[in-house]
Amino acid sequence: MAAIGRFQKGDDIFHAKVVDGELFRVQGDVFGAPSFDKKPIPGKGVRTLIPVVPSKVIAVGLNYADHAQETGKPLPKEPLFWFKSTASLIPDGGTIEVPFPEHRTDYEAELCIVIGRRIRNVTVAAAARYIFGYTTAQDITDRTIQKAESQWARSKSFDTFTPVGPYVDTKLDPRDLTIQLFQNGQLRQNSNTSQLIFNCSQIVSFISTNLTLLPGDLILTGTPSGIGPIQSGDRLEARIQGMAPLVNTVR
Amino acid sequence: MAAIGRFQKGDDIFHAKVVDGELFRVQGDVFGAPSFDKKPIPGKGVRTLIPVVPSKVIAVGLNYADHAQETGKPLPKEPLFWFKSTASLIPDGGTIEVPFPEHRTDYEAELCIVIGRRIRNVTVAAAARYIFGYTTAQDITDRTIQKAESQWARSKSFDTFTPVGPYVDTKLDPRDLTIQLFQNGQLRQNSNTSQLIFNCSQIVSFISTNLTLLPGDLILTGTPSGIGPIQSGDRLEARIQGMAPLVNTVR
Repeated sequence: MAAIGRFQKGDDIFHAKVVDGELFRVQGDVFGAPSFDKKPIPGKGVRTLIPVVPSKVIAVGLNYADHAQETGKPLPKEPLFWFKSTASLIPDGGTIEVPFPEHRTDYEAELCIVIGRRIRNVTVAAAARYIFGYTTAQDITDRTIQKAESQWARSKSFDTFTPVGPYVDTKLDPRDLTIQLFQNGQLRQNSNTSQLIFNCSQIVSFISTNLTLLPGDLILTGTPSGIGPIQSGDRLEARIQGMAPLVNTVR
Repeated sequence: MAAIGRFQKGDDIFHAKVVDGELFRVQGDVFGAPSFDKKPIPGKGVRTLIPVVPSKVIAVGLNYADHAQETGKPLPKEPLFWFKSTASLIPDGGTIEVPFPEHRTDYEAELCIVIGRRIRNVTVAAAARYIFGYTTAQDITDRTIQKAESQWARSKSFDTFTPVGPYVDTKLDPRDLTIQLFQNGQLRQNSNTSQLIFNCSQIVSFISTNLTLLPGDLILTGTPSGIGPIQSGDRLEARIQGMAPLVNTVR
């Protein structure tokens, strides 16, 4: 496997491997030991969906030293996490809807972990074996509400506030990848996953000591510095080295 | 309908109406217009499960004036909500597992709303029509972690930290009900749902202006005063007037 997506054609919803723009349908459990059709699916009328259907979406905060610095908050000693609504997910190509145009609402590009197996209490050394792969996400945030309320759930969980995809890369090494956010073609965030305070294995291990993770669960690993406001009509492109870009528009 | 539960007998998982301790199986979508078997199911070997399977568990904080006062926090102007892990749910009769015995971990009895239909942007006046019913829950909290971290997700989302059930009452009027928590037979919390700062319709309407709610979603409406620590061996009984008690033990 490499890039695995989830697609819809008519009423048919399916996972497929993406190779040079062609889709090869997954047979069997995508998290198990799936096989792939030999012949590609005719691309006409195929729509890209969110790549997996998670039981929960977890976000980790202040996980790049540069972003923690720009917020003025102290560095966490352990990963700080919270939950986003699963109803906030939208796929590549989807539209981010800003609920309060008078508020400041920000982009936040993030590397996203996709869990592959049921996990409870795994060590850092073993964590990678439970990761299905990686994708790109945004943790869109109503900064005005985030500053007004002690809990971040509401400000980050409006419908459409978690773009994710387009695909899950099951072979990516997440340790040294450029991560960028372009707003209308202008580079706004530009960092590297090597700057993560807690790396992917540390995050998965830590969360698994708190609660059970299930196949398809998503963990957003935090955003680097350079956060900034979005406006209606914006085209946002989150790019992580080695993966297809995640492109969304704003309304 | 009145009390609806979810049960397991062998490999068979089903919803049923509970009448005088007898179970009448639900036919059709429990959130739609279900019918009920005329003959009860033989009770032998039947296990009570969590009464619904939610896509998300939402908790509302500081929603009883007396509890807000005991925490020393100011009263919220709008409902303050966050998400709990769906993996934290346990049924009536289930065991609460305390992860850190050296921490203070507290009971919190709460009235719990069960959503019946897909909702986005409903008014306070219309909200009741989207509510399937009510049940009893606890929002178990590792108070030591809650005080140490800005976000409450982790301290309230350890596996087993959300007992819920035993059944959903679809005919309950939630506006004036005694709510109590007994610890080993001793009365610890004793209030009334008339003391809620935001009532159930206001909570559902407010959350629906932020995000989409789906059938089965749970909303814990906050706990009254009298919170206190639990210990291994405790028997906790949360009682809301008109509903069967929710009983759990602690390990």
